[in-house]
Amino acid sequence: MTERMPDFDGGRHGHLVIVGGHEDHENSKEILSRFVQLSGGQGAAIAVITAASRVPDKMWERYDVAFREIGVREVIRVDLPDRATANDPALAVRVRACTGIWMTGGDQKRLLAMIGGTLLDEAMHAALKESGACIGGTSAGASAMCGHMLADGKADLLPEKGSVSLGAGLGFVQRVVIDQHFSERHRLARLLTIVAQNPYLLGVGIDEDTALVVERGVGIEVIGAGSVTVVDGRTMISDVADISTGGTPQLIDVRLHLLPAGSSFALSGEIDHPHQLPPGATHTTPAPLLDFVRNVTKRTSLS
Amino acid sequence: MTERMPDFDGGRHGHLVIVGGHEDHENSKEILSRFVQLSGGQGAAIAVITAASRVPDKMWERYDVAFREIGVREVIRVDLPDRATANDPALAVRVRACTGIWMTGGDQKRLLAMIGGTLLDEAMHAALKESGACIGGTSAGASAMCGHMLADGKADLLPEKGSVSLGAGLGFVQRVVIDQHFSERHRLARLLTIVAQNPYLLGVGIDEDTALVVERGVGIEVIGAGSVTVVDGRTMISDVADISTGGTPQLIDVRLHLLPAGSSFALSGEIDHPHQLPPGATHTTPAPLLDFVRNVTKRTSLS
Repeated sequence: MTERMPDFDGGRHGHLVIVGGHEDHENSKEILSRFVQLSGGQGAAIAVITAASRVPDKMWERYDVAFREIGVREVIRVDLPDRATANDPALAVRVRACTGIWMTGGDQKRLLAMIGGTLLDEAMHAALKESGACIGGTSAGASAMCGHMLADGKADLLPEKGSVSLGAGLGFVQRVVIDQHFSERHRLARLLTIVAQNPYLLGVGIDEDTALVVERGVGIEVIGAGSVTVVDGRTMISDVADISTGGTPQLIDVRLHLLPAGSSFALSGEIDHPHQLPPGATHTTPAPLLDFVRNVTKRTSLS
Repeated sequence: MTERMPDFDGGRHGHLVIVGGHEDHENSKEILSRFVQLSGGQGAAIAVITAASRVPDKMWERYDVAFREIGVREVIRVDLPDRATANDPALAVRVRACTGIWMTGGDQKRLLAMIGGTLLDEAMHAALKESGACIGGTSAGASAMCGHMLADGKADLLPEKGSVSLGAGLGFVQRVVIDQHFSERHRLARLLTIVAQNPYLLGVGIDEDTALVVERGVGIEVIGAGSVTVVDGRTMISDVADISTGGTPQLIDVRLHLLPAGSSFALSGEIDHPHQLPPGATHTTPAPLLDFVRNVTKRTSLS
């Protein structure tokens, strides 16, 4: 397979654009435009994977139109009627050559059942890690980015032991679990349920029309209309192991971070921070956020 | 004024029963029964203050029936058509002699406008602090317990600078701000708005049919159907002072505690903890909760 080395800005590290669903695709297109920019701009070759959705034609049309309106000339439909197709070597070569790969919403379990562990999955990782491609996903496509993926279940008002299950995700980020439509669907209780039972995972809730933009090895940024919420249960005191299924765990000292659009944090100080610092100043990530930024920006080699 | 020293269990310290609204008043009556017990049981003399409500007759009837069904023989209606009535010395003497004082829901601003700083207000404090009476309040009556009272405003999905205002409350607890109907009305964003702008105050969210029971100088307990959420912003990193009104503040390292019904914490180890400890064991309050428990149990003299 011939490697295609993109020459767009910053692309050498590889980016993730992790979107909380319902991103604007008709007007400002702020998030989709950023995804295109990080994929190489008008010269990008963008693959659209609609496998999460039960209405893939509608999803394809939406993003084909939006990306072309932004100016992308090469938008490629990755149609996956079955898992065998995701193991088609010719398809994998096409996706491997793309500079941007977009995963639509739908059901992350469906997406993983279709592509998890296939040649297509490998091609996506290679594109990101060896060629610095940009991987974007919205809603189900965002949750699917994690190694441990929020798969199923809900906790409406309070955390509820055993009510939410994890599955094996695509693993573009590790040691985090991502939920989407976060503030709009009041999903803190669901995220706390996961974190209570899996304190190893940092919980990340992304609002609608909001993206966590990750430059691997460098830093993160929040763009769009809402916020990214991070819950860190690593030092909490909890009785979750002792209570019955269905019970509400006692949680003491969960750390919560709210990062509105405009927030940005660099591992080594190279990103401006529009909120707290004067123009032109640089900063490093505050200590309470450091592991979160490290986890999502971590550059791992192909396994 | 002759002091009436109650002889009921534990009453020497004085209790607060702070309820998140919609407590059961027809079936189990768990919370109202606890309030009655802490007020002296069947021998209690309970005053019902309906001033927060615009339908005081309905409120009076509800609690008169409920308290009598629990077995209380002396239930006293405190009718406050105006502020002058709250300054009636004869009324103050009657309330001062009560072993339990209950504040209904409604609007905490209305309640404070009617009784804040009056002889009735003084009588309530004296009953609690000098005679060990029990002060209970639900919904508006819960928020009104604080020195700095959540008065007005909302933040639906995300914290919003300037959207929530404080007022002067009754001051039975200091350095905390209490919100109610907490999980049911998804009020974390509203509570974070207050805490972001007033990190001195610990935010306390109480669910419906749930009570934070405080024994002054001793400890706390959560009873009922839901949980009590505490948000502690004292060590957070925030840009709230620099952003515009209406903006979402960046909040890093807010401490969050979720205390479901059954949680109990003693300042000096005398209360059992049903979740974490074997039967009969005692414990003290974990360090991250210590200031919260200290603030709400603090015994202050009459000012």
